[in-house]
Amino acid sequence: MVDGPGARVRAAVVGTGLIGGSVLLRMHAAGVDVTGWDPDEDTRRRARRMGVPVPDLLVEAVADRDVVFLCGPLPTLPATLVEVAAMTGDRCVLTDVGSTKEEVAAFAATRGLTDRFVPGHPMAGTDRAGLTAAGPDLLTGAAWVLCPAPGPATAAFRWLAGLLVDLFEARVVPMSPAEHDSAAALASHVPHLLAGALAGAVQRAPLRDAILALAAGSFSDGTRVAGTPAERTANMLLGNRQRVLRELAEVTSFLDDLAVALHAGDAPALTARYDEARASRLALRDRRFDAYDRRFPLDGDHVAEVSWLYELGVAGGHLTGLRVGADTVSYTARRPAAD
Amino acid sequence: MVDGPGARVRAAVVGTGLIGGSVLLRMHAAGVDVTGWDPDEDTRRRARRMGVPVPDLLVEAVADRDVVFLCGPLPTLPATLVEVAAMTGDRCVLTDVGSTKEEVAAFAATRGLTDRFVPGHPMAGTDRAGLTAAGPDLLTGAAWVLCPAPGPATAAFRWLAGLLVDLFEARVVPMSPAEHDSAAALASHVPHLLAGALAGAVQRAPLRDAILALAAGSFSDGTRVAGTPAERTANMLLGNRQRVLRELAEVTSFLDDLAVALHAGDAPALTARYDEARASRLALRDRRFDAYDRRFPLDGDHVAEVSWLYELGVAGGHLTGLRVGADTVSYTARRPAAD
Repeated sequence: MVDGPGARVRAAVVGTGLIGGSVLLRMHAAGVDVTGWDPDEDTRRRARRMGVPVPDLLVEAVADRDVVFLCGPLPTLPATLVEVAAMTGDRCVLTDVGSTKEEVAAFAATRGLTDRFVPGHPMAGTDRAGLTAAGPDLLTGAAWVLCPAPGPATAAFRWLAGLLVDLFEARVVPMSPAEHDSAAALASHVPHLLAGALAGAVQRAPLRDAILALAAGSFSDGTRVAGTPAERTANMLLGNRQRVLRELAEVTSFLDDLAVALHAGDAPALTARYDEARASRLALRDRRFDAYDRRFPLDGDHVAEVSWLYELGVAGGHLTGLRVGADTVSYTARRPAAD
Repeated sequence: MVDGPGARVRAAVVGTGLIGGSVLLRMHAAGVDVTGWDPDEDTRRRARRMGVPVPDLLVEAVADRDVVFLCGPLPTLPATLVEVAAMTGDRCVLTDVGSTKEEVAAFAATRGLTDRFVPGHPMAGTDRAGLTAAGPDLLTGAAWVLCPAPGPATAAFRWLAGLLVDLFEARVVPMSPAEHDSAAALASHVPHLLAGALAGAVQRAPLRDAILALAAGSFSDGTRVAGTPAERTANMLLGNRQRVLRELAEVTSFLDDLAVALHAGDAPALTARYDEARASRLALRDRRFDAYDRRFPLDGDHVAEVSWLYELGVAGGHLTGLRVGADTVSYTARRPAAD
């Protein structure tokens, strides 16, 4: 970590559902001085029974903290951000775990919070919900997107990135909010649409029970995220609406190509399309990474640093650590090896 | 088993790839007298090194066997069926493991093989291929569709069902070929189309590498079967073309509804659709079964028996065993409990 071991950090988690609860339990297990808070009284009680300090008042949970993780439902995020910002000092880093980043980043800018709000998105989850489904290892080793910004904001990004690597063994993926939202549309949001459509069609099918009896890997895998609480999925999709619809059009265009080849009984065309599709699976499976270091001046406008970070994320790379020295910050990174 | 323990059965497996190899290895491990055969010489050699008798000539593998599992690629199945039928006696039961059933059942009928060919489809697999990916436990406990037919064919069905329960702990799902193909379209084939479309769109995306870096559960699950060898997938889809296209239309219709609600920013409509979709996941997760027995006369036309079996499969039930007595056959079955 940048400023010392995680154990000395004073952290808070606001919204202790699946993701927030997992952040909380991990930090608690690591010995971090961490408080939790949730608007639901039962959830607060449950968290207390896990040994975590959970005051009844939000202000008591977040005051004097070094970092606050905002983990409530997406639609509540702007209001919570404003509220928590007012309860904390200028040196308190704020971050979130929402599934889209551009809207919240723009909102934070309008409230003058860019310098200390670092938009974040850990790429992990389950189809269950709530603190009862949370666990200290849910996020361990996850790809965790953070959105750095130039200027004073860069210091907050560096500190938080170091904390996440330390506490969560995170692969920190630095991206601009817009590029995150584009990538997440295909990596996560459109898959939720496809899973919903498949599960929905099965639900309506006259042979539903027989279909479920035959459901092996492909159906079960392909619909798993359709088991997610519906409202959470709806919020996620609505928060990235334009991009999701755009990327959905790319997917349905490929689907149309498959259907045309199938309709025509054109085995070579169908096989060729599947070979193309399979290439992305093989790329996922066979990815190799080159490790390298990169150093930037500690002070200045950080424009070069942030553009290198963005470029790293777009290339499919991530940070494995960073060290802040007297005059420089030194990143260790991994990026996909050229084929 | 019906006619004695599996160890006394003389079986053969023709085509020892992923599924056939797993059938072979399971029976070999269970002490069944089983031979294998594959058109590929290297595969035959590999199977021999696993201790399985694999003659170089097909006729030597299948002659004098009680049962032959036909496990080659779908397009080769009719020719292999005719060939193996000619090499074996009238009392030798033939079955296959192909992903569609109506075409092969109809073909078998034209060749007068209905009485001893029992169309089959074990619902298991992986995205890998070949004997190297096979294993004796791949099919253990799988839902295994068998298509019974009235008349003399029923005896072959009973015997094979008993064998599969004994050797594979199979949940034998009895279905008509047409109903199997309809259910499999949504349970397996359309999921392969969606996975292919998603993986294909990602492969073409400018942000492909960033998308793969963010790929957590939903993408990874949703595209897994797109890693299947392309030709196998193409054959599977082409073998059930009309039904796959029909069920795909149901899925894209649900997808359109989701997209319309998303486009309109209509959170309640989107949530309602997802609640509907989620119901099938919950049904899959929460299924409870009632066990019951059913008895039929050993002789006769078996029309009532077969129609009960079909009805069991359509209801999402399966056989867990059967016993042939002096005058009756007694099935033990499980079917989904009424809510």
